[in-house]
Amino acid sequence: MENLNSGVTTEVEIERVKEQHRSKEKDLLIREIPLTIFLNEQEFVTLFCSPQKLDCLAVGFLHLAGLLHGKDDLKEIRVERKKGMVFIKTGVSAGQIEKISEKKTGISRGERETSSVRDLNFLPGRENRADISPLGASLQVKAGELFELMASLLKASSLFKATGGVHSAALARPDKILFLSEDIGRHNAIDKIVGESILKNIFLSDKILLSSGRISSEVVLKGAKVGLPMIISHSAPTSLSVELAEKAGITLVGFVRGRRLNIYTHADRVVF
Amino acid sequence: MENLNSGVTTEVEIERVKEQHRSKEKDLLIREIPLTIFLNEQEFVTLFCSPQKLDCLAVGFLHLAGLLHGKDDLKEIRVERKKGMVFIKTGVSAGQIEKISEKKTGISRGERETSSVRDLNFLPGRENRADISPLGASLQVKAGELFELMASLLKASSLFKATGGVHSAALARPDKILFLSEDIGRHNAIDKIVGESILKNIFLSDKILLSSGRISSEVVLKGAKVGLPMIISHSAPTSLSVELAEKAGITLVGFVRGRRLNIYTHADRVVF
Repeated sequence: MENLNSGVTTEVEIERVKEQHRSKEKDLLIREIPLTIFLNEQEFVTLFCSPQKLDCLAVGFLHLAGLLHGKDDLKEIRVERKKGMVFIKTGVSAGQIEKISEKKTGISRGERETSSVRDLNFLPGRENRADISPLGASLQVKAGELFELMASLLKASSLFKATGGVHSAALARPDKILFLSEDIGRHNAIDKIVGESILKNIFLSDKILLSSGRISSEVVLKGAKVGLPMIISHSAPTSLSVELAEKAGITLVGFVRGRRLNIYTHADRVVF
Repeated sequence: MENLNSGVTTEVEIERVKEQHRSKEKDLLIREIPLTIFLNEQEFVTLFCSPQKLDCLAVGFLHLAGLLHGKDDLKEIRVERKKGMVFIKTGVSAGQIEKISEKKTGISRGERETSSVRDLNFLPGRENRADISPLGASLQVKAGELFELMASLLKASSLFKATGGVHSAALARPDKILFLSEDIGRHNAIDKIVGESILKNIFLSDKILLSSGRISSEVVLKGAKVGLPMIISHSAPTSLSVELAEKAGITLVGFVRGRRLNIYTHADRVVF
């Protein structure tokens, strides 16, 4: 495994002002890099991200875009860290890529929410199926376990957060965190978790997604796409994320802080 | 002007857990809505945002995408709040829309950074011009003024922030904030500022952009596109945002907290 701190920050010279005093000092900046994903030898998209777990990010991004179904689909993955490039080969046809790309509007939207609410009706494998089992029907988690999980996430990412403005996410079982990710982007952090799950062949329907950040509709849509039954956050959900979680059968828990939490939807998965 | 609190939040019933105690309570959620922008009678993009200043958001978004040059370009704007739709007519041709859309990769990227670093070479009106004046050559701001501006931003948005997870941005002169915006998305908040500047015909080359949130490369690219000479934030910049600000001639100031701040680039605009 790579050293978690390698390349996370970079040193620059800044001018620090305190009251009337001004001085030149060294400061640490959180690194942001452009990562270009090449899909089947075509340049596909450039994301701006923190330079860790680039393979996970690319795999998670493509999976959530509907362009990589699972590990069996992944014919080749090659990361060129210094160039900021990931090359992925999958069985997806040029026609499918074109079709999926056309469904979305082709303008850069930056760091913002752009999925359609209608996406919920197109969850992979869930279309037109009345017989589908409820998501994570068997998952039961104690409130005390949720307190512990969130405390672990915040503790594990505290060093990284020292530079300010970093989001963390993790995949967990009720009793422990399986792995975590950190990124300048909330969505990148979650895509890295999804990608790592695929690369490790981990079944998500009985797992919990943890996030340090706000839960917007797009986070819930991602959870629904991969079949996660529970999303818990240190921060607040939005109104639309609560509506979508209700509809998707996801337990949404927010403001997990100390020995408190709020349950917004499907509260029956949280027990004592 | 609309009441700033109308529709900002919505009430839901939640289950609150505190230690071993569990109770049903009412809670306020920050509202998130889908906003679909129709450009020249074609559905163009759906953004997820807070339901204020929707006209500003649509205008700012289209301007930053290169599809609306200024107020003269705007033939019609109609907001249908309840439907979550904005209809805009501009002089831009279908061919231009197509061309600009094709420059970007056509996959939803959610709340993440996706602009190309190469965008810096395509700043509107700055291509191939060696004779262009340096950005905001005349702007000089006292450090004390920056402390006051950030304090004003945080104070003005404190009520809204009570619900958690909201970003604020503002446009300012050295001596005062001109207007501010708040949104669940950092980029939406900035697009609203850009849009309001266009609708009010405000010249940006001697103004300051304030942000409560982290400064990533995409924020700096937006600032560069509209000719803003200074961006100040309560939070941290990333390494790439500092590189781009250096190149674009933008003064980047971070961690404006109390009577302290850090100047990352073009420090000569900050005086005592």
